[in-house]
Amino acid sequence: MSIRALLNIEQPIIQAPMAGACTPELVAAVSNGGGLGSLGAAPMKPDALREQIQKIRTLTKRPFNINLFAPASEQFDAGAILGGSAKALLEKYHQELGLGELPQPSGIFGPAEEQLEVLLDEKVPVISFHFGVEAHHVKAIHSAGLKVICSATTIEEAVHLESIGCDAVIAQGSEAGGHRGTFIGDFQQALIGTMALVPQIVDAVSVPVIAAGGIMDARGIVACKALGASGVQMGTAFLGCHESGIPSAWRQQLKASSPSRTIVTKVISGKPARGLANRYIQDMEALEDGPMPYPMQYALSGAIRRKAAQQGNPDFLAMWSGQGVGMLREMSAADLLKAIVLETEVLLKALSG
Amino acid sequence: MSIRALLNIEQPIIQAPMAGACTPELVAAVSNGGGLGSLGAAPMKPDALREQIQKIRTLTKRPFNINLFAPASEQFDAGAILGGSAKALLEKYHQELGLGELPQPSGIFGPAEEQLEVLLDEKVPVISFHFGVEAHHVKAIHSAGLKVICSATTIEEAVHLESIGCDAVIAQGSEAGGHRGTFIGDFQQALIGTMALVPQIVDAVSVPVIAAGGIMDARGIVACKALGASGVQMGTAFLGCHESGIPSAWRQQLKASSPSRTIVTKVISGKPARGLANRYIQDMEALEDGPMPYPMQYALSGAIRRKAAQQGNPDFLAMWSGQGVGMLREMSAADLLKAIVLETEVLLKALSG
Repeated sequence: MSIRALLNIEQPIIQAPMAGACTPELVAAVSNGGGLGSLGAAPMKPDALREQIQKIRTLTKRPFNINLFAPASEQFDAGAILGGSAKALLEKYHQELGLGELPQPSGIFGPAEEQLEVLLDEKVPVISFHFGVEAHHVKAIHSAGLKVICSATTIEEAVHLESIGCDAVIAQGSEAGGHRGTFIGDFQQALIGTMALVPQIVDAVSVPVIAAGGIMDARGIVACKALGASGVQMGTAFLGCHESGIPSAWRQQLKASSPSRTIVTKVISGKPARGLANRYIQDMEALEDGPMPYPMQYALSGAIRRKAAQQGNPDFLAMWSGQGVGMLREMSAADLLKAIVLETEVLLKALSG
Repeated sequence: MSIRALLNIEQPIIQAPMAGACTPELVAAVSNGGGLGSLGAAPMKPDALREQIQKIRTLTKRPFNINLFAPASEQFDAGAILGGSAKALLEKYHQELGLGELPQPSGIFGPAEEQLEVLLDEKVPVISFHFGVEAHHVKAIHSAGLKVICSATTIEEAVHLESIGCDAVIAQGSEAGGHRGTFIGDFQQALIGTMALVPQIVDAVSVPVIAAGGIMDARGIVACKALGASGVQMGTAFLGCHESGIPSAWRQQLKASSPSRTIVTKVISGKPARGLANRYIQDMEALEDGPMPYPMQYALSGAIRRKAAQQGNPDFLAMWSGQGVGMLREMSAADLLKAIVLETEVLLKALSG
């Protein structure tokens, strides 16, 4: 089955869920343009999540996707703030930015179970997961008549996701910005480039494969089609859209960056993710004992990021970005989708000519 | 100009130079099949190099490529064997394999100047470089009426290579097996996936771009064409050919491997390179003070690799491999080329239909 038929979309283009960057306006614009808009909902409380879904529904009648971080077993333990030099460095930043003491963090992540209940209740057409998905969640989603897709960073992960019933697999190449979706084995061994990952996953599973990582325009879309992908997921390409909710300092840095500026690091959330290098990443990477585990590091560094966004200071932002960053375009999401679809048709004709 | 016109080849397919794997038979088979066969000559003494070139010429009348490691400034200092735990571990392996004392290494690498003289004298049609190339070497090659191409792992490197007159640039994506060609900046920041690297280099230079990294069949070739590449360079795909000169233990490991088995490591040569993980790499990677610098580490670990090849023991081999390893096919180079060319035509038609 094609990803178009499976997800009931006109264009096989999924806007990647990016927590902190996806506004309901961006999601709706992509869905209205014939693609699949996505909301990164991992950090949202159930009530806020429901509000966002209802807001999206006022803006589009088309299918859309909500993304959660899974599995639910990685819960946030608010009582156990770890020590070590990462915490000390965060305290130093708090002083520098006039933020006072580190907050006592409350459970800002998940639990995925409660978030999922909202998605089922709201009949969200497509639910996607990062860091794997539990088999019983897949069953619950299917029982509600909804579709479930999940990221794979290795062939082994893709085969597992198919075996537990996922409707499609997102092959997340090493070029991709944001969190690595790795859930089996070491993430370093799962940094596989899109060019190699997609065809090997296509060869290994029967469900449709969605290519992700480094895809910024028609060239990447046609390339992934040639590799056997049924569709693509594009994140960084949509960060430049007018509807993207990123701070302007992040946007400016993206426009000035080349792929060598991106780095896969654990120091922002505690889990490996690709973003633009800055002072925060350099300082934290230099610590011998490393960052706190996920999601502790993410939660305790949140106030710094919010302050940096207010101040327009890129030194402390989490500026997720894929390696395609040099191909970024600034326009509305509707215009970007139209341009990509048109350019794809032209390129396909040119290739066969 | 197309890479076909530039290099006088019928198919825009370059068999990657892989020292230790390329036999004159493999090089000639690829060139006779309409592609560009390549010999990895970095470890060859000038006399041996001349012999190999003359041998290739008895097997083909078509253009071929000889690859050197550059720049010449990285000379082998035979007198300065470093200490440290890498040397101690090599000595332990020598005992285990019954090899006696570590040898006093002689200058097995380069100097590139003397190697280049042979290539100019023999009028080798295409000369390629890894680790950059000196501007005066480019001039000397052009003065001899020959073509020069070089690997780039970042956009910055590609722009530099064009500025010093290279006829084409090889965009080496992070998927690629063997040595990373990085010659400006940190190699970690230059691990850019083919999907992202190729179009950004295409946008940045005017010379033809040859895509490398993760390309194993028609899917990768068409994908790279879509990304704007004028041709492709394929290494791992040719390792499985009957004419490839790799030890059978290496071949067996390739056939049983997935991309997660490959790792970029400095412990084989002293420079970062991608190959299949094994006991040697695991042990050496665990050392706190790391390997000796290139080419010391490479030279002093040579006897171990030769013994391992004799014994059919993969534990100590340098099993270079790209992340496309799961798509390996075993056949003659002529048959592989024919199959790829035919499959490419079929795929191009299917895409446009």
